Amino acid sequence: MARTLTLSFSCPDASGIVAEVSTFIANHKGWITEASQHTEHELSRFFMRVEIKAESLDFPAADFSQHFSPIAKKFSMDWKLSDSAKPKRVVILCSKQEHCLYDLLARHVAQDFPFVIPCVISNHEDHRKIVEAHGLPFHFIPVTDENKSEAYRKMDAIFVKEKADLIVLARYMQVLDAELCHKFAGKILNIHHSFLPSFAGAKPYHQAHKKGVKLIGATCHFVTAELDEGPIVEQDVIRVDHSESPEDMAHLGKDIEKIVLARGLRAVVEDRVLPAGHKTVVFR
Amino acid sequence: MARTLTLSFSCPDASGIVAEVSTFIANHKGWITEASQHTEHELSRFFMRVEIKAESLDFPAADFSQHFSPIAKKFSMDWKLSDSAKPKRVVILCSKQEHCLYDLLARHVAQDFPFVIPCVISNHEDHRKIVEAHGLPFHFIPVTDENKSEAYRKMDAIFVKEKADLIVLARYMQVLDAELCHKFAGKILNIHHSFLPSFAGAKPYHQAHKKGVKLIGATCHFVTAELDEGPIVEQDVIRVDHSESPEDMAHLGKDIEKIVLARGLRAVVEDRVLPAGHKTVVFR
Amino acid sequence: MARTLTLSFSCPDASGIVAEVSTFIANHKGWITEASQHTEHELSRFFMRVEIKAESLDFPAADFSQHFSPIAKKFSMDWKLSDSAKPKRVVILCSKQEHCLYDLLARHVAQDFPFVIPCVISNHEDHRKIVEAHGLPFHFIPVTDENKSEAYRKMDAIFVKEKADLIVLARYMQVLDAELCHKFAGKILNIHHSFLPSFAGAKPYHQAHKKGVKLIGATCHFVTAELDEGPIVEQDVIRVDHSESPEDMAHLGKDIEKIVLARGLRAVVEDRVLPAGHKTVVFR
Amino acid sequence: MARTLTLSFSCPDASGIVAEVSTFIANHKGWITEASQHTEHELSRFFMRVEIKAESLDFPAADFSQHFSPIAKKFSMDWKLSDSAKPKRVVILCSKQEHCLYDLLARHVAQDFPFVIPCVISNHEDHRKIVEAHGLPFHFIPVTDENKSEAYRKMDAIFVKEKADLIVLARYMQVLDAELCHKFAGKILNIHHSFLPSFAGAKPYHQAHKKGVKLIGATCHFVTAELDEGPIVEQDVIRVDHSESPEDMAHLGKDIEKIVLARGLRAVVEDRVLPAGHKTVVFR
Repeated sequence: MARTLTLSFSCPDASGIVAEVSTFIANHKGWITEASQHTEHELSRFFMRVEIKAESLDFPAADFSQHFSPIAKKFSMDWKLSDSAKPKRVVILCSKQEHCLYDLLARHVAQDFPFVIPCVISNHEDHRKIVEAHGLPFHFIPVTDENKSEAYRKMDAIFVKEKADLIVLARYMQVLDAELCHKFAGKILNIHHSFLPSFAGAKPYHQAHKKGVKLIGATCHFVTAELDEGPIVEQDVIRVDHSESPEDMAHLGKDIEKIVLARGLRAVVEDRVLPAGHKTVVFR
Repeated sequence: MARTLTLSFSCPDASGIVAEVSTFIANHKGWITEASQHTEHELSRFFMRVEIKAESLDFPAADFSQHFSPIAKKFSMDWKLSDSAKPKRVVILCSKQEHCLYDLLARHVAQDFPFVIPCVISNHEDHRKIVEAHGLPFHFIPVTDENKSEAYRKMDAIFVKEKADLIVLARYMQVLDAELCHKFAGKILNIHHSFLPSFAGAKPYHQAHKKGVKLIGATCHFVTAELDEGPIVEQDVIRVDHSESPEDMAHLGKDIEKIVLARGLRAVVEDRVLPAGHKTVVFR
Repeated sequence: MARTLTLSFSCPDASGIVAEVSTFIANHKGWITEASQHTEHELSRFFMRVEIKAESLDFPAADFSQHFSPIAKKFSMDWKLSDSAKPKRVVILCSKQEHCLYDLLARHVAQDFPFVIPCVISNHEDHRKIVEAHGLPFHFIPVTDENKSEAYRKMDAIFVKEKADLIVLARYMQVLDAELCHKFAGKILNIHHSFLPSFAGAKPYHQAHKKGVKLIGATCHFVTAELDEGPIVEQDVIRVDHSESPEDMAHLGKDIEKIVLARGLRAVVEDRVLPAGHKTVVFR
Repeated sequence: MARTLTLSFSCPDASGIVAEVSTFIANHKGWITEASQHTEHELSRFFMRVEIKAESLDFPAADFSQHFSPIAKKFSMDWKLSDSAKPKRVVILCSKQEHCLYDLLARHVAQDFPFVIPCVISNHEDHRKIVEAHGLPFHFIPVTDENKSEAYRKMDAIFVKEKADLIVLARYMQVLDAELCHKFAGKILNIHHSFLPSFAGAKPYHQAHKKGVKLIGATCHFVTAELDEGPIVEQDVIRVDHSESPEDMAHLGKDIEKIVLARGLRAVVEDRVLPAGHKTVVFR
């Protein structure tokens, strides 16, 4: 894979943004491999994502910001540049369930999309062996009612030390405290085992079973201080019927939980996800 | 299609029900073409549906009830026998939107599943021509705040006169009153344009858009006096993204609304749907 | 809906195309409501589609071509401009089956996407009434082994007279002759009742049943002189199992046939489909 | 999970089979937890699967065969009894790709369905560590043009020694020889990375890309001596478009490959899959 720079931004909607950005890139010989744009009318805001072959530009990748700054300033862009040479650092938090962790480890091994796992944190020892077999550090941080705050401060220190770009709750069964949610806002991804906004909170499969729905779902969303209320990144569903117990649903649901989490993570890692108020723009 | 009898029942769970029912059928030379069963553990209740070739039995179809009654009594069955020679009578209520109506008319023409449309009722004149082109009576019954009760009594009279087995709200935009809901309990099917329990009530696509969900859905359910709360029969979803406005969603959603309604109706018409408390058992 | 101009083109891949096109539009005050692009590497060819609010431009819509021509020439574009004020004219050919016809008529009534039906042609009289109830001309053109060529010449004349932009085979069971295929190349859409390339030709549901596949599909494709080999526009599938006979599959399959055809037609009508060799680029 | 016995059989279609089987079970106090049946008309053959709580019977599980034999004989059944206390032994063969292996290991750890992995065999050393971290034996058996036959005889010996009930080719890139295929007929499951019968053989994603299909698929099937022609057990698809290269498809396809393989394996392990000529009956 050739080295790419990914420019993503949003800004107040205006005329001529695409023209100016694409002319800038063309003038510097940039080879665009992918481009997407969107206007969010409720917010009068424009969103764009452009992937450029790094070596095509007539200046070093490191100088992109300096060259692009005037345009960013002119349109009051909230912008970001990612360099494929510096893959995102994704800390994984897991609990006793194995499916999302194994799924992410497999993708990491294959580098299905470019990300680094600096470490895995869990409140249980169950998955130490498998994590360490990949040469990855495993931190056991038990969380109880008594030590909660202390435990979260330990995690906080690890996130900072490991320079985490993202924190993934891979069916981590604890609710992070408000301090963590705020400090790492926009950086924490969760997988919830229902099709939100239905069945937020505890035991969603039991709620789904009680209601008698004919499909069950999973939702990957950013974590905010309000439980299961953060911006949705990705969702999917599978069919169930009257014969499935809540336990059957929990088994079947694992298949979409891990796939939806991975698709959400991939989109975020590839800078395809731009915040848009309490929603997200997700460029394919 | 050969004439079939469909026996469907539920009863308190017990040992030997299948044995007794299947032995009864076998003893009378009955040829079973399809059979399904289910135990709802929360209710300790057993559900079964059997399709039998009418001409295989050693007694006339009309005598089935008499022969089967002792078994039904023994197990305290809530049971029903349907005869494919007497297709269900389905009154359709529609409003200005056309997609569900056209879809049902097409299925009626093709007899994709066996049902009769005795008439169509609407609070708008828009679709009179197309309905009458099929040789079906079209009743225009406007519904206003003032005449509501009177209008519903008119419909009630039509349902009774037409011996309606089922009433289908094919995107009929009015909320039926409690009297109708009670009188025709278990006989009125609605299509709601969301994946219930999310986005009940008015303007579900606007609600979905506001929440930023990545899939939108449709739900076919029985109508009860509580709005959008009746037992769910069938559901499905389609993918949307940030680029779709509520109006786009409303356009796209039509495709699943009509399909989900038709699948739900078909299942009910074929006696595949058995009530199970506030849920349904739907045999494939 | 505001009037829009849709520019779509493909051309040999080169640097600066987006910049030049978007700068042209920006310089003329054009308000872009949607834009998509793609490079087909095997062909070294670039594809783009841009939707512009007609009234935002500083010249009349009629003058677009004149202003844009120099750019089109510079990049050797194969280009097209569509004006939402002139909706596409879509002639429908149907046979005995009703589902695709009804589905398209419903969309026409609702103008779910902007298209005009100048007339419907069929080799059977079955659907005359429903078509005429919409105020649309219905042409009965029987096709037999003897009159085939004559019949197709009649249709040809109708296509020309009605200024057909598109011809839709809505489960029209006849194979058009090579002359029609060539004369209206890129303008004839078919729905085939299998997931191509599997089960081309006759009786695809029987083929699918014989093979024991667990999903059946439908494919919307452009018609070429080679049967079921034209460029694919849209496809979808539904689940089946061992219990479905070929006849059951044919019933179930109707639901995806009509939806896939409509989605394919909509994409073509909205100029989202660009030919790319024997494949298609379909911009969402 | 309570211990269950699963009786599955097929036999020439006849009247009274269900009655006799269910009466037998009822007479022995058996508690049926699930039952399914199907008639394959082309074969005039009846298929049935019944799950019974082992402790509900009035004889020991070990005596089931002895008691049931007369009925089996009477109807010329091809029958099988499985005991949940003796989970199936599944030998996994993998190559360099990781996704199916990790997925199966995760399900094994969680015992999502009851199976034992006696060992993993691979023609590459890549996954030794992860396999051994689970305490499972890993056999490295390289396969070259020269040693092929010898390598397959080694595997054969392992299958026999490990008393393998099933052999799963988890994206194992080698074609087993006819001897293995015959000896373990009906016991070898493969995952092919296309929606068969489309794109059998090598490089299916390249074939799919070349054809321009809008969905790509995966097929779990039994292995026979004819490549990719064995009875299909499970299939699924995902959406792609013009923007995906064959390599992108290969990445995306992994998600359905592993899910389809696991669903197929689960169905086989739970005795839901009965051979029916060159097809399968798969009871939900």
